[in-house]
Amino acid sequence: MTEQAPKKVDMEKVVSLCRRRGFIFPSSEIYGGLSSCWDYGPLGVELKRNIKDAWWRAMVQERDDMVGLDASIMMHPQTWAASGHLEGFVDPLVECKSCHRRWRSDDLEGDNCPSCGGELTESRLFNLMFKTFMGPVEEEASVVYLRPETAQGIFVNFQNVLNTTRRRLPFGIAQVGKAFRNEITTGNFIFRSREFEQMEIEFFVKPGTDQEWFNYWIEERLNWYVKLGIKRANLKLRQHGKEELAHYARDCYDINYLFPMGWSELEGIANRGDFDLVQHASFSGKSMDYFDDETKEHFIPYIIEPSAGVDRSVLAFLCDAYDEEPDEDEIRVLLHLHPSLAPIKVAVLPLSRREKLAGVAKQIYADLRQCWMVSYDDAQSIGRRYRRQDEIGTPFCVTVDFQSLEDEQVTIRERDTMNQIRVPISELKKILQAKLKGESLFVLPPGGMIWKVEREEGG
Amino acid sequence: MTEQAPKKVDMEKVVSLCRRRGFIFPSSEIYGGLSSCWDYGPLGVELKRNIKDAWWRAMVQERDDMVGLDASIMMHPQTWAASGHLEGFVDPLVECKSCHRRWRSDDLEGDNCPSCGGELTESRLFNLMFKTFMGPVEEEASVVYLRPETAQGIFVNFQNVLNTTRRRLPFGIAQVGKAFRNEITTGNFIFRSREFEQMEIEFFVKPGTDQEWFNYWIEERLNWYVKLGIKRANLKLRQHGKEELAHYARDCYDINYLFPMGWSELEGIANRGDFDLVQHASFSGKSMDYFDDETKEHFIPYIIEPSAGVDRSVLAFLCDAYDEEPDEDEIRVLLHLHPSLAPIKVAVLPLSRREKLAGVAKQIYADLRQCWMVSYDDAQSIGRRYRRQDEIGTPFCVTVDFQSLEDEQVTIRERDTMNQIRVPISELKKILQAKLKGESLFVLPPGGMIWKVEREEGG
Repeated sequence: MTEQAPKKVDMEKVVSLCRRRGFIFPSSEIYGGLSSCWDYGPLGVELKRNIKDAWWRAMVQERDDMVGLDASIMMHPQTWAASGHLEGFVDPLVECKSCHRRWRSDDLEGDNCPSCGGELTESRLFNLMFKTFMGPVEEEASVVYLRPETAQGIFVNFQNVLNTTRRRLPFGIAQVGKAFRNEITTGNFIFRSREFEQMEIEFFVKPGTDQEWFNYWIEERLNWYVKLGIKRANLKLRQHGKEELAHYARDCYDINYLFPMGWSELEGIANRGDFDLVQHASFSGKSMDYFDDETKEHFIPYIIEPSAGVDRSVLAFLCDAYDEEPDEDEIRVLLHLHPSLAPIKVAVLPLSRREKLAGVAKQIYADLRQCWMVSYDDAQSIGRRYRRQDEIGTPFCVTVDFQSLEDEQVTIRERDTMNQIRVPISELKKILQAKLKGESLFVLPPGGMIWKVEREEGG
Repeated sequence: MTEQAPKKVDMEKVVSLCRRRGFIFPSSEIYGGLSSCWDYGPLGVELKRNIKDAWWRAMVQERDDMVGLDASIMMHPQTWAASGHLEGFVDPLVECKSCHRRWRSDDLEGDNCPSCGGELTESRLFNLMFKTFMGPVEEEASVVYLRPETAQGIFVNFQNVLNTTRRRLPFGIAQVGKAFRNEITTGNFIFRSREFEQMEIEFFVKPGTDQEWFNYWIEERLNWYVKLGIKRANLKLRQHGKEELAHYARDCYDINYLFPMGWSELEGIANRGDFDLVQHASFSGKSMDYFDDETKEHFIPYIIEPSAGVDRSVLAFLCDAYDEEPDEDEIRVLLHLHPSLAPIKVAVLPLSRREKLAGVAKQIYADLRQCWMVSYDDAQSIGRRYRRQDEIGTPFCVTVDFQSLEDEQVTIRERDTMNQIRVPISELKKILQAKLKGESLFVLPPGGMIWKVEREEGG
């Protein structure tokens, strides 16, 4: 069994599948692309939506200690003075004195410009925030930054949320949104890009209980990936060393995933202490105190921050789902995506394009679309069509054949096992509903209309 | 009956409700706010999510002629040369020669600076796109713009989508995402801000069929708002005059809503002809042709564009739902939000905080959270709690009382009618499921466990 051993997939294969099937395209590709920006195509946008929705459902809807928020990308510049980003969010760069190109000092091997061989300046610090001007005049007073993280939108709204929801500690605020960093070094497909999306939680707790909550969230977030199908062997926790801790962090663990380029950060869970609220209280002059009804104390809460990358999650789920199986003379490429993440839940495949068959199949297609993203495919052989669905991770195919016209039954074919079962059309939606929830079915042979559902373990 | 007459609500009342209950806060409020940027609080983020999800469901999932896309906010600068935004997306401004502030020429009444009375320059054109620099060097070569509309991300991906999905005309590409415009004049709460979100469809059709599809989409989009509860009398179609048509449009209708400040654009539906694809073909040198299998013709499709504002939709749904009813000595404020849009679907209200009752209520709360956003409220009188839920548009309250401990039944109270029915706890989820879908129920009196569901008209 290789299931328990870490397994790396080839990046080129994933990128090629993404490009070929419409998961992810280079941004503005007709103009030669825009450095490390990516567009999510028809399948990619569904996968990404499903990941974000699964996160929101598990982190906000199903919990009794979490609320959501959606702050704007442009924030008051003082936010970044308070957060430390204006001073601290910098990379050391050197500039070539002849061609004026700039390089990250720690990326350079020699003392001269890699481009033209010219002499380099001393290293200087450059801020990684994207800067723009609000209003008609481009002057210092109108500078605003694109947020380099969604977290600050939560901190500045702490009192607003407290006052309007009357929450008591411990509780969290969750947010999904874009952030921007003018990184010098990007790459590894969608792993590191200048425009990216985050799923962040800021969980407010009473000081002294922070270690306990820190441990809780590390466990909780790790389990979230595993529940959605990531193999545990491909995930690893890594504690930050004292010297690499960010200025705001008392402690930090990365959840690392075995990406094609090696173990890399998928999510970071930090104990930010009271750093952020103290800073914002000091810069804004507004109180960030919390009043504890029971102990009658005023204090500034500590914050535990599980911060996940949406695009990195997309890449991790794709890599982990990617599989190749020998299949007669060919290789069967498939994505073992969790049913709740699969872009298309069901594909309806009529065995022929003849009108009578197509009529039945299209009716089924229309019915199922009321429940899920469903696709319809009537091109080429049924074997090829199964392969096409396997490759994009569609958990179930529904095949409509000539027999269906007589017995009003269709075949459900499962992606992972390639098992086929025959079910009455009238029961199809219910059966798929159960199967997509991970319940297993025992269906009596054709003609029998009785079927039974049993929940699979860990389903 | 006033139902059929257009009815305007007071903006201040809506803004105050949004602020008070946590729908919408001014961005970076602790720093004095950032001009016309807004943060969606715990209830606002749910309302906005529900609107976007309802749009995606109706426009993508349920249709057989639409796919989704999610392009990046930063695009290759040539995109904006091709689209006409670099040259044409401008406002005429004048500058004061003494204080150097700038003003929209058409906003000015006199010949002098409204600020200091100084002399004004001739009017000059300023581009409304936000500009920033990608990479470490701030120079002309590294300028990128924040997209002023999501549409162009679809046009540049037309061939990518065509090739990977093998779609035939007519078909559409749908996208939800942020766009940015450095407007000089903003205001009316979230109606016009510099950072906003769009829900755009670009629907590709064969030239000659465009008028028919243009009419179809005007009707389709109008109906979408009505189905989700906007009163028809508060919506109006307005055709653009020849002289006000944008440079890319052959024809355009606005769907106007009766906002508090008067009739204003909620959505625009434009017949863009082949303008965009021709421009991008010419600027990129890439073919934007479509090959028609049946007629063996190559041609560039025409595009019908229904373009809706997410934030404007939020405002319209809030305004339309806002209502005040006399209620004894007080006024009952309520939001008649469509159940699928309501931020919270069900509130669980134990009649007392005593442990036995709270135990039952919390179990119900935990069960229902598996299905929906649910809230729990045990503070103050039951009448006050009903009012709090009415005010945020919660369609159903579930009240747990001492009788519940004996008969295992609870009371469901409806927001709009204030009707109450008593139902078995074991059937609660099923009954709420049906009610949230707009099905009406006939429940036998307490003790009877049989209930019947009948779909309401137009539900």
